[in-house]
Amino acid sequence: MVMSIPQRILVAPSGFKESLDAVEVAAAISAGIRRVIPGVSINAVPMADGGEGTAAALASATAGKIIRTRVTGPVGEPVDSHFAVLGRVDRPTAVVEMAAAAGLRLVPGTMRNPGKTTTFGVGELILAALDQGVERIVVGCGDSGTSDGGAGALRALGVRILDAHGRELPEGGAALCNAGSVDFSGLDPRLAACQLELALNPFNVLCGPQGVARVFGPQKGATPDQVEELSQGLDRWAGLLAEATGMPEEFLRNGQGTGASGGLGAGLAAVGARLVPRFELLLDSGLAGIDLDAHIAKADLVVTAEGAIDFQTPRGKVPAEVARRAQRAGVPVLAFAGSIGKDAADVHAAGIDAIAGIIPIPMDLNRAVAEGAMLLQEATERTFRVLLLGSAISSRVGAAA
Amino acid sequence: MVMSIPQRILVAPSGFKESLDAVEVAAAISAGIRRVIPGVSINAVPMADGGEGTAAALASATAGKIIRTRVTGPVGEPVDSHFAVLGRVDRPTAVVEMAAAAGLRLVPGTMRNPGKTTTFGVGELILAALDQGVERIVVGCGDSGTSDGGAGALRALGVRILDAHGRELPEGGAALCNAGSVDFSGLDPRLAACQLELALNPFNVLCGPQGVARVFGPQKGATPDQVEELSQGLDRWAGLLAEATGMPEEFLRNGQGTGASGGLGAGLAAVGARLVPRFELLLDSGLAGIDLDAHIAKADLVVTAEGAIDFQTPRGKVPAEVARRAQRAGVPVLAFAGSIGKDAADVHAAGIDAIAGIIPIPMDLNRAVAEGAMLLQEATERTFRVLLLGSAISSRVGAAA
Repeated sequence: MVMSIPQRILVAPSGFKESLDAVEVAAAISAGIRRVIPGVSINAVPMADGGEGTAAALASATAGKIIRTRVTGPVGEPVDSHFAVLGRVDRPTAVVEMAAAAGLRLVPGTMRNPGKTTTFGVGELILAALDQGVERIVVGCGDSGTSDGGAGALRALGVRILDAHGRELPEGGAALCNAGSVDFSGLDPRLAACQLELALNPFNVLCGPQGVARVFGPQKGATPDQVEELSQGLDRWAGLLAEATGMPEEFLRNGQGTGASGGLGAGLAAVGARLVPRFELLLDSGLAGIDLDAHIAKADLVVTAEGAIDFQTPRGKVPAEVARRAQRAGVPVLAFAGSIGKDAADVHAAGIDAIAGIIPIPMDLNRAVAEGAMLLQEATERTFRVLLLGSAISSRVGAAA
Repeated sequence: MVMSIPQRILVAPSGFKESLDAVEVAAAISAGIRRVIPGVSINAVPMADGGEGTAAALASATAGKIIRTRVTGPVGEPVDSHFAVLGRVDRPTAVVEMAAAAGLRLVPGTMRNPGKTTTFGVGELILAALDQGVERIVVGCGDSGTSDGGAGALRALGVRILDAHGRELPEGGAALCNAGSVDFSGLDPRLAACQLELALNPFNVLCGPQGVARVFGPQKGATPDQVEELSQGLDRWAGLLAEATGMPEEFLRNGQGTGASGGLGAGLAAVGARLVPRFELLLDSGLAGIDLDAHIAKADLVVTAEGAIDFQTPRGKVPAEVARRAQRAGVPVLAFAGSIGKDAADVHAAGIDAIAGIIPIPMDLNRAVAEGAMLLQEATERTFRVLLLGSAISSRVGAAA
């Protein structure tokens, strides 16, 4: 019996936050595989997830263009930002990446307080896209450094947010505890003629025990007290938005994706945005026209990856989406992760057959981030040697049986 | 076609220094495998390598006993130590583990200067074994914190080491630069009637570019200057031993195993000890009667492990010895390592088919050491999922072919 090893491999990873973008991750994995299986056919399909790199990836995939502009950053200082105007689309479409105006990476380490940071710049990007005359704007959500319920973005679009005494509320999620009313009368009228869609993780909801402040607040820098304050503020915010728009309060609090990007989902929903599970927009018949299922069908093995694999992975992350589709097609899945966290083994139930880390020796996070590409390539090489060992044993045991 | 997975696995690991002994390593690996292959037949054969745990392992394997005693530690303070008197042997035999009297673990972190540390306690253990009336003493080498060429041990056995002015030399390897003569006239006469053998790594030599000071000095705490001083001291020491004993200087400098345990090999060779490659004594027809080859012949897969896998692994470490024998029998080998270091991929040429690390996320060494058993078990589980994935793909690709 001849040993059978995978010959057609689909590499469909996410980026590793603050270390490698999805294209770099795919390149490192592919290089590692080639060291072990010379002559293998690798199909690299880096996955956009709405977060950092999404605008650039979609501009590239559709032969569109990137437009650079300066907006208000998450801590109030101006930042260099950008958005995409897509090519090869039926009607003029822009892709605004919220992380390019209010991402966690734009918040200096010493200022990581999601009670203060604002999505004002996201609203400015939307205005800049409207200035381009687009008829559809897709806002990619992910990697946010904010928790203001989209209040800043609404303000940039002309909405007034007042306290009980009719005074303008300060920026940031903490202030929402004191919100008294929302006035939509000044909203930019061009929005009415533009289709606004958010590409987001539908598992993220605004309020309640799984609400965005509790799930993501700590990694954005919130203390336990601040998490409570943010939760209360967002709860109040949902009530006010419902009151002002007539939208169901239950939807604004617990609807799929309302908690995306620190509640930007709920805020923009209140001005008519559709909240769309991100992979519906980013794959299939979506913006970039990536037919992931067709790629999967041609593979013996699918390799995916994300910066961290943990209990959150099955909740709508790239590896879970890739695995869901691969499982449907009966193709096995291997996932790499820069860090393997709490309850990572839960991903096996989500269709990921095996996971592998990339850290070879005790080292700190800074070194792991700085050396990410090399660590990933070497880990891929090691892991594929284990995989081939499994093939060899299978042949050996099979032959003896 | 039925998927074929390994059903009979030999687990033959070394210990992880300062974290887990070989029995604990074998237990963690076995538990991890069982999580993935229920009903698997696992044969656990923890490997003694002459270093820490060797005396206890051999006492246990031969139904012998451990004798506890107090000796001079490597920095001059008394330490609780022990040696083994073996059961089931033809003639009374003791096993002295040099690490139990002069191991690196006995040198406080702030005092790690191999120019000062001494093997005096090793000589005291040999005297204590002679007091038991044994006719054969095996000294296990490994995990030493010394680089004194065995000068301390010889002194404990009655040898005098003098400087050019006839004064007693201080303890430690640095002082050997000033050695002028060695006087064997006071050597304990009982040694003449006792067979002294060292179980050691034959790759370790006393002098030259691959000499023990250069290869191991830094990990024992020596600065580059101290490494040079130690190298010169050991070179001088070899010359004096040759002069005093009539042994070939070339053997004392470059003979196999002369550099074992900071040069203890050369020092005890000068009083008649045989320097024996450790696995000849510790396996096969050796002291414990472990027939590793017979265990390998019954396995589909051999799993080995060591605290670190790197460029030194092929130079006589446990995983290399296990792999050498497994390769001869045509059985594949997987190796786990707490840390995967420089040029680890060199081990593939030594017969190790695949290696896997245990570190899931960026973390420091202290945490890795403290959580070693859990990390190893979880890594084993993850790695065996990759191995089984390889088996499954093999079946899939094979079936399609």
